[in-house]
Amino acid sequence: MQELRDIVLIGAGNVATRLGIALRKGGIRILQVYSRSQESAHRLASLLQTGHTTSLKEIVTEASLYIIAVADDAIESVVKGMEAQQKFLVHTSGSVDMDVLAPWAQNFGVLYPLQTFSRNRNVDFNTIPVCIEANSLVNLDLLSRLASSISGDVRTVPSAQRRMLHLAAVFACNFPNYMYTVAESIVHRANLDFDLLKPLILETALKVQTISPEKAQTGPALRGDARILEGQMELLKAYPEILELYKKISGEISKLNT
Amino acid sequence: MQELRDIVLIGAGNVATRLGIALRKGGIRILQVYSRSQESAHRLASLLQTGHTTSLKEIVTEASLYIIAVADDAIESVVKGMEAQQKFLVHTSGSVDMDVLAPWAQNFGVLYPLQTFSRNRNVDFNTIPVCIEANSLVNLDLLSRLASSISGDVRTVPSAQRRMLHLAAVFACNFPNYMYTVAESIVHRANLDFDLLKPLILETALKVQTISPEKAQTGPALRGDARILEGQMELLKAYPEILELYKKISGEISKLNT
Repeated sequence: MQELRDIVLIGAGNVATRLGIALRKGGIRILQVYSRSQESAHRLASLLQTGHTTSLKEIVTEASLYIIAVADDAIESVVKGMEAQQKFLVHTSGSVDMDVLAPWAQNFGVLYPLQTFSRNRNVDFNTIPVCIEANSLVNLDLLSRLASSISGDVRTVPSAQRRMLHLAAVFACNFPNYMYTVAESIVHRANLDFDLLKPLILETALKVQTISPEKAQTGPALRGDARILEGQMELLKAYPEILELYKKISGEISKLNT
Repeated sequence: MQELRDIVLIGAGNVATRLGIALRKGGIRILQVYSRSQESAHRLASLLQTGHTTSLKEIVTEASLYIIAVADDAIESVVKGMEAQQKFLVHTSGSVDMDVLAPWAQNFGVLYPLQTFSRNRNVDFNTIPVCIEANSLVNLDLLSRLASSISGDVRTVPSAQRRMLHLAAVFACNFPNYMYTVAESIVHRANLDFDLLKPLILETALKVQTISPEKAQTGPALRGDARILEGQMELLKAYPEILELYKKISGEISKLNT
C-alpha cells in the first residue's frame, strides 16, 4: 500500500514550522517549503534542510502530500495557484471546511493539530491531538498513518465537529490568555510582579488535567461571597471595561452554584 | 531571638490542610487543629499527627503563632471567641485587611499563600509565593522566617496591594477555569472529549511562564478575523449567555491590536 512519506509544506508560519520539525523527526521527507515571503521560505527550508520556493508554479509535483498551513483566508488563493488537481492536499485549519478543497483536487483532507504554536517554542508533538478528515477512506487511512508518525493521539474529526472544537479552543486558550493579560495589568497597577501569579496560573491548568473544570471552580463568585465581589468591583471602578467583564463572568460563574 | 516554631491551626479546609502539611514538613510543630466541625478537625489533626478541638475556649495557649485559615467572613467571629489578646495571630486571606485583627491582639499579621488549593491535591509549596504582612517589624521578621521554612518565595505585601493581588488572582485562576468549563460544555455538545483540549490548556499556561500574556495572545479576535468571529457567533446563537460572553471578551481582545 502507498504511504505518504514525502511532503511539501505550503506556508512557513508557526504551524508549518512546528509541523515540519515534527514530521521530519517522524521520518517524513520534506521535499520543499513554499512561502510567498522569501525570508520565511528560506528560514524554514534551512531549518528543515530542504529546498524552498516563493512561486506556487514552482512547487515540485512528485510529493505524496501537500500540507497547506497558511492563514485561513489564504487557503483558497494558494490552492487556485498551484495546479492541485492531481495532488493530495490537506489544510491544517480548525475552522475551514474540508470541502473548500473539493473543487481543486481529487484527493483532499484536513490535518488539524490542536495546539497553540509559537515559532520559537518547542512543543512535544507526541501529546498533541491531531484531528484528521479526508475525502475517502483510503485517504483517511493514509493520513492517519502519517499523523501517527508525529502524534500518539490521532482522531478522525469531521468538519462540523472540528468547527465546534475550534470554538472550544478559543475558550480553552485565547480567552484564558486574555484573562492572564488582565491579571498582569492589575498586578502592574499595584506595583507587583506578574511572577507572583505564575504558579497559580500553572496549577489552575494542571488541575483540570485530572478534574473536570466545573468541579475545579473556586472563587468568590462561585461561593456567592457578596462582600468580596463588591470590594473587587469597587477596586475596578476606574476601569469600566474590566469591571464589565468582571461582572459578566462572575454572573455566569454564580449560576454554576444554583 | 524568638522563633515561631510551634503553631495552632485554626481551620481545617483546603488552605489549612495544605499549609499544615507544608509547615510540618518545614520542621514547624503543629500543636493543635481547631475546626467547628468535629469531622474536619479530627481528619486534619490525624493527618498532622496532633491534637484537635472544636471549642475555641480549648485552644492551647502556649503556641508562638495562631494561623487562622477559615472563610473570610468567619475570621472575626473566630478571633472574638478565642481570647486572643496575648497571642500572635495571622490570617491567610487575600482580601481581608490585616487590621481586622487589631482590636483583638497585640501581635498580628497576614500570611497569604497565593495558590489554589484542593484538599486532595498535592502542591509543591516551595514555589508558591507567600505574601506576608505584620503589625511590627519584629513580627514581620518572625513571620518571614516562618514562611521561609515552607516557601522559597516570601514577599512583604501590605493589605492594599494584597487586595489587588487577590483581584488579579481571580483573573488568573477563577476566570480561566470558567473558560475551561465553557470549553468543556462546547466539546461535549459536539460529542467530543474534553481530553482533546488538555494539552492546549496546559501549553497556554506554560507559555506565559516565560512570555508576557499580552505577547502570547493569539486567536481570531486578535487577528480581527471577521469570518471566523461571525462563524463562531453563529455556532453560539442557541446559547445566548455564552454568545454574549464571547462577544464581550473578543471585543476586549480586539482592542489589544489597535
